[in-house]
Amino acid sequence: MKVAIIFGSASDKPIMKKAADVLREFGVEFSAHILSAHRVPELLKETVQNLEKDGVEVFIAGAGLSAALPGAIASVTTIPVVGVPIASGGLGGLDALLAVVQTPKPVPAATVGIDNAANAAYLAIEILAVKYSDLKEKLRQFRETLKANLEESTVAL
Amino acid sequence: MKVAIIFGSASDKPIMKKAADVLREFGVEFSAHILSAHRVPELLKETVQNLEKDGVEVFIAGAGLSAALPGAIASVTTIPVVGVPIASGGLGGLDALLAVVQTPKPVPAATVGIDNAANAAYLAIEILAVKYSDLKEKLRQFRETLKANLEESTVAL
Amino acid sequence: MKVAIIFGSASDKPIMKKAADVLREFGVEFSAHILSAHRVPELLKETVQNLEKDGVEVFIAGAGLSAALPGAIASVTTIPVVGVPIASGGLGGLDALLAVVQTPKPVPAATVGIDNAANAAYLAIEILAVKYSDLKEKLRQFRETLKANLEESTVAL
Amino acid sequence: MKVAIIFGSASDKPIMKKAADVLREFGVEFSAHILSAHRVPELLKETVQNLEKDGVEVFIAGAGLSAALPGAIASVTTIPVVGVPIASGGLGGLDALLAVVQTPKPVPAATVGIDNAANAAYLAIEILAVKYSDLKEKLRQFRETLKANLEESTVAL
Amino acid sequence: MKVAIIFGSASDKPIMKKAADVLREFGVEFSAHILSAHRVPELLKETVQNLEKDGVEVFIAGAGLSAALPGAIASVTTIPVVGVPIASGGLGGLDALLAVVQTPKPVPAATVGIDNAANAAYLAIEILAVKYSDLKEKLRQFRETLKANLEESTVAL
Amino acid sequence: MKVAIIFGSASDKPIMKKAADVLREFGVEFSAHILSAHRVPELLKETVQNLEKDGVEVFIAGAGLSAALPGAIASVTTIPVVGVPIASGGLGGLDALLAVVQTPKPVPAATVGIDNAANAAYLAIEILAVKYSDLKEKLRQFRETLKANLEESTVAL
Amino acid sequence: MKVAIIFGSASDKPIMKKAADVLREFGVEFSAHILSAHRVPELLKETVQNLEKDGVEVFIAGAGLSAALPGAIASVTTIPVVGVPIASGGLGGLDALLAVVQTPKPVPAATVGIDNAANAAYLAIEILAVKYSDLKEKLRQFRETLKANLEESTVAL
Amino acid sequence: MKVAIIFGSASDKPIMKKAADVLREFGVEFSAHILSAHRVPELLKETVQNLEKDGVEVFIAGAGLSAALPGAIASVTTIPVVGVPIASGGLGGLDALLAVVQTPKPVPAATVGIDNAANAAYLAIEILAVKYSDLKEKLRQFRETLKANLEESTVAL
Repeated sequence: MKVAIIFGSASDKPIMKKAADVLREFGVEFSAHILSAHRVPELLKETVQNLEKDGVEVFIAGAGLSAALPGAIASVTTIPVVGVPIASGGLGGLDALLAVVQTPKPVPAATVGIDNAANAAYLAIEILAVKYSDLKEKLRQFRETLKANLEESTVAL
Repeated sequence: MKVAIIFGSASDKPIMKKAADVLREFGVEFSAHILSAHRVPELLKETVQNLEKDGVEVFIAGAGLSAALPGAIASVTTIPVVGVPIASGGLGGLDALLAVVQTPKPVPAATVGIDNAANAAYLAIEILAVKYSDLKEKLRQFRETLKANLEESTVAL
Repeated sequence: MKVAIIFGSASDKPIMKKAADVLREFGVEFSAHILSAHRVPELLKETVQNLEKDGVEVFIAGAGLSAALPGAIASVTTIPVVGVPIASGGLGGLDALLAVVQTPKPVPAATVGIDNAANAAYLAIEILAVKYSDLKEKLRQFRETLKANLEESTVAL
Repeated sequence: MKVAIIFGSASDKPIMKKAADVLREFGVEFSAHILSAHRVPELLKETVQNLEKDGVEVFIAGAGLSAALPGAIASVTTIPVVGVPIASGGLGGLDALLAVVQTPKPVPAATVGIDNAANAAYLAIEILAVKYSDLKEKLRQFRETLKANLEESTVAL
Repeated sequence: MKVAIIFGSASDKPIMKKAADVLREFGVEFSAHILSAHRVPELLKETVQNLEKDGVEVFIAGAGLSAALPGAIASVTTIPVVGVPIASGGLGGLDALLAVVQTPKPVPAATVGIDNAANAAYLAIEILAVKYSDLKEKLRQFRETLKANLEESTVAL
Repeated sequence: MKVAIIFGSASDKPIMKKAADVLREFGVEFSAHILSAHRVPELLKETVQNLEKDGVEVFIAGAGLSAALPGAIASVTTIPVVGVPIASGGLGGLDALLAVVQTPKPVPAATVGIDNAANAAYLAIEILAVKYSDLKEKLRQFRETLKANLEESTVAL
Repeated sequence: MKVAIIFGSASDKPIMKKAADVLREFGVEFSAHILSAHRVPELLKETVQNLEKDGVEVFIAGAGLSAALPGAIASVTTIPVVGVPIASGGLGGLDALLAVVQTPKPVPAATVGIDNAANAAYLAIEILAVKYSDLKEKLRQFRETLKANLEESTVAL
Repeated sequence: MKVAIIFGSASDKPIMKKAADVLREFGVEFSAHILSAHRVPELLKETVQNLEKDGVEVFIAGAGLSAALPGAIASVTTIPVVGVPIASGGLGGLDALLAVVQTPKPVPAATVGIDNAANAAYLAIEILAVKYSDLKEKLRQFRETLKANLEESTVAL
């Protein structure tokens, strides 16, 4: 049960680290790679296919601007690709969001919110939990704990 | 290996049928349900939990406007929810896209493109294929056939 | 005559406090609650229904991102729900605005401007003033005072 | 218990008629008026104040483009004003939505979705139901019936 | 030959001062007033009509958010109104721009760019220069000087 | 007292005719010209300067897409230029609106709403009326008639 | 002197034909190919590299939705790639525009307007004309003829 | 083999310097000029035509707001013009992007991403490399080096 996190630029690291933190919390093994769809398309393809052979079962891909990375990965594998649009520049991530989510059929990218790499990890875990029942149980407990922690909601304002 | 397709209004049927067509093509069993997060929140919750007990392993949820449905399903299950933003009215689906994709952690909706219910089905199949190797093989063959059919690309213009 | 202020995350507190300040100024009793539509949907429903039994007559609900909270409250009560879209991230609150305002019939959220929780309180007071004539009189006086304070408009530039 | 529906142009009639239909269904008395904030500002003010004297308790105001009407009404009364942004031209109603919802404090317009005049009527009824318990009961029954009608959700796709 | 500058809130002062500076540079007399279309509609109307009687020949009106001010002035006078959309909050002034520019016929607001109060003053001067030939001559000289100052364009980079 | 209407393409004729109709109604002399800022920049400049010599006192300029025309005219004259953004293609005129209105100081274009050439003519008339008192009187009467025609506002819905 | 036109889907043919028509008019040899960056990434790469070996000197690439095609071509060649964003669905081509134009350095796509494939061909010709002086002469004559045809600009309105 | 970099305002210098840096790195001679399409249209035209006579083969033009500069240059030359939309103010460069890219046929501007002047230089180099084989070789080597430097992609997260 392994995840690979791929992102386009070293400047995306603080955003993508949030995915790593969640995966670690759930004990999901992962590796992380900086690879650009536009700058090293062949290396990207090779790496994706090697990771697939190595047993990776879900990709998490983060990219900004024209954000071709998640779709580029999805075009060379049938493993689920979770896409994280990353905000950069004045458009607030709208460019990246549209580029990640609007891929044509039959090459989907499972898109989460702008800069929301934590949610990408939760989605990857939900996908893996379809297969791995212990992970499903961990997810269930996590949600229970979440609810318990939020039980008392009244605040002073 | 079962999928449930849920959508908010009978008018979404022609869009969501494209998901059904893809699932049928891959031999994935599914049921379809019209349920609104805003109009029948309790029935939605019950139905989702019953479908989960019945063995559903992925949800596909389509909704327009404020498009709360995918997130509402995701809030009561840990099964992956694939969200389809549906265009309606003058904003071209931007409203639905933002509502579906921008759910907070730890409650992701795996969002695909506006009105792109076919891609939702392909994503659901990819998710199931993590677990079911025969489905993975079918996906692989489907992609091969796709490529073979597109081999000769030159056209008159 | 009671109002309940509900919002999705502790980080929304500074925004929502502006509603509390206005309600206090008008002597309207209120309670405040942090409750997420996505994280604790059942607790939200219970709390809303308990507040209704307790005599709450208007809800004020603030949320960011996919901002499902106002609509989720409106789906389990027929009490008026005033929605405050909260800006967070690069889209400047456009995501929250669309998610709050575009709820389908017959489940409206009475939406005010982005981050404008003060206006949510004024609207809640206007709604209560339909029933409570003393509040209507206070509103009238408040507007008169406002005008008197703004009477001399000429400035040096 | 009376509502006044005001809109800026005869071309908005088909949209605003949806509000009238809902009010009629709930037995709420109303009158309808075509009045432009930009073309006849004084007549608008007089009419609003006469309607208030006549016992109107909620205004519903629909407008397109720069959509000043709901705010203009709200500026001369403390009665709740429900605003309906109307789509016209290529921006799909985004112009009207922003103009209606972004009014400054302390002059809110209770905004509903683009072209969603039916929701404006439901909101007006919810506001009146704070005061009139028979209307509250009708609303409750309406929601029950809605749920009963939607009980069987499974469809063929 | 007089101009009146009107804006909705004291916080708009730094933006609107840029209009005052240009008018002063051209020796055009002006007065400045803080008046809100939503908060003091009657005072606004009276002031506009008094300014008109006093010989004001062009209005410059700046406003943010739903920015009703320029249109509200234009609705009670036939003197040209130059509108300045002011950015405030996360939408970067798009809300104000649409509200100012999209007024319906026959009530135009002569809109300039977001926060570009200097351009509002230049436009007011161009309008006055249709009537006042000395102002036209000043404008001509100003443009000549501008060109002379920009004659040498080559820079090191 | 003369106006020149300039627009970029023969396909803009139906939109710009609305300006001509208003000018004719007010007895304002005008000529109309198809001239593109991008295709014939020199002819545009010459024509603008000849029209100015011929006594034109206001320009009305309509353009779509990158809509450089109003700013290009304004860059070679100090006569007021009223800009009409024309919708064409999928962006609904947002492209043209931004291009027309966001010209830098000191080169304003007096922008009116998308496709609202009638309002451009009303604005041109207001500008001319600063100088010509008979036109000012006509405008005043036109507004009075407008109000008289709209006096009875109540409609059946 | 050869151009290759590549586009993602047969449905883009009517748009891309406009590029072909312009190239033919200028006597520039070209071939046309339907190839999707997402569906057949390897075939795309091979074809691009074969076309380059065959003497193609400029690519014209049209795509809609997440529009990865121009960037994908640019990532495997250093030949100039002219990108045509194609409108499809409710966003009017804004999605495709952002995806085409926002590619990261050092992999530019020379983007033209939405659906404006004719302009892509003119740009390709301008690029080739840097090298081929006879093409430069043809361009010059074309512009002269254009101007001559537009010399008489006055129209009845 | 010469490039001219033109931009509208001294404040654009830090952005446009990134183009200069890339050109220097590739040994491409260039000059830089501050020239506004709106403020000095005639000087712009003269300068462009003089630069063309001087042997300039590609223009790089950067501009913000209504960003007419690239199109204005393209309207007086048939040399390729690479356009850089520059973000300024609250719209994040969307205004400049649309103004630069949406020029009408047959006057294209080869648009790159917002503030991405480096990519403008890479595109200029690709265009020149069609003609100059030594530059083509440099580009090829640059891409090889880029790939070599990015070969090891795995990172700790």
